[in-house]
Amino acid sequence: LVKCRKTMLRSLQSQLSRSKFILASTSPRRKEILEKTGLTFDIVPSLFPEDLDKSQFTPASYVQENALCKAKEVAAQCRNASLIIGADTVVELDGQILEKPNDKTHAVQMLMSLSNRKHNVFTGVVLLRPDPAGGEAIVLRKFVECTEVLMTTFNEEMIRAYVDGGEPMDKSGSYGIQGEGASLVESVTGCYFNVMGFPLHRFCKHLVSLLEEKEI
Amino acid sequence: LVKCRKTMLRSLQSQLSRSKFILASTSPRRKEILEKTGLTFDIVPSLFPEDLDKSQFTPASYVQENALCKAKEVAAQCRNASLIIGADTVVELDGQILEKPNDKTHAVQMLMSLSNRKHNVFTGVVLLRPDPAGGEAIVLRKFVECTEVLMTTFNEEMIRAYVDGGEPMDKSGSYGIQGEGASLVESVTGCYFNVMGFPLHRFCKHLVSLLEEKEI
Repeated sequence: LVKCRKTMLRSLQSQLSRSKFILASTSPRRKEILEKTGLTFDIVPSLFPEDLDKSQFTPASYVQENALCKAKEVAAQCRNASLIIGADTVVELDGQILEKPNDKTHAVQMLMSLSNRKHNVFTGVVLLRPDPAGGEAIVLRKFVECTEVLMTTFNEEMIRAYVDGGEPMDKSGSYGIQGEGASLVESVTGCYFNVMGFPLHRFCKHLVSLLEEKEI
Repeated sequence: LVKCRKTMLRSLQSQLSRSKFILASTSPRRKEILEKTGLTFDIVPSLFPEDLDKSQFTPASYVQENALCKAKEVAAQCRNASLIIGADTVVELDGQILEKPNDKTHAVQMLMSLSNRKHNVFTGVVLLRPDPAGGEAIVLRKFVECTEVLMTTFNEEMIRAYVDGGEPMDKSGSYGIQGEGASLVESVTGCYFNVMGFPLHRFCKHLVSLLEEKEI
């Protein structure tokens, strides 16, 4: 059971405890952020291959589609859940989508391209209700949150040392704002938790409205 | 010893390890943020009574003066340190300085005043070099960082539950952006860590320049 932390959701505790929530993501950052809501939830990894053709999408439509595909795949595995939470995060720079780096050279190159300028972080979130009878899951909510991040001026020595430390390798855009990468960030404009991978405030607002509308 | 986390400071590791750093603050948030730099440091609480007359200060000059007084007091205790780090944080709303709440009623009142609008968080930082011979410490750097925070619309039930949980009581402005309070924050503009109590990026930049100028 997750420790009770539910400022926005506290008064809805009894309704929430009757529902079975599933996070369709293995990201430890998303787990950590979702725990701040006080929700009790299970984690079920999606088997969706994440092989969409990026050239066919804007950054916003790309994360939205990935989040939907991940959530749908998990909804088919977990038909008795109340709500499946799918999410996907990318970095956008000059219209290009940056995801996790392929290797250390790629990570250094990606980070150097972010030096001394702003980029955007997009997270798409999809909330699905599975059909216990085996039909298509229902999309209750979908949204995209964007946060602007201004990076400091890097030198290559600094960046090589950061990449050698390992943190960038499993992160979209090759940095972790909550970890070692924190000192690289001059400022953010928007939701900070969105940069970590999950737009906490907006998710809570949607959950409150879903409860009010008796959708979950 | 603090775990090695020093993206901006990594290439300066050997110089930094020769210096003795002291954080003149018992805030667990400041300790946590400063640890992200990889610095090894001691914590020495300041005995400065923090009794300045707020009506004589702007929010920026108030946190600057508090940080200076805290750092000076610790510099007198620790004359052989290389650098004393003093810091102070307040919330500003309509020109009024909000600090830690006096009691639960005060915390509820303070939080309700932040509902559905923007406020500013100011942190003053002072970096001092003590005089081993017993003279006045030298001010190497002082600066103030301001971050704008937009809060969601609260209802009193939500806020009472948050205050009853205890988190607001030791925090300027009565909320913790990194804890339960996270879901209350719609967006930030500026340094996120500044809202937690310590402007990480700007501190790192000053430390790099102090090393380059051989001031520490």
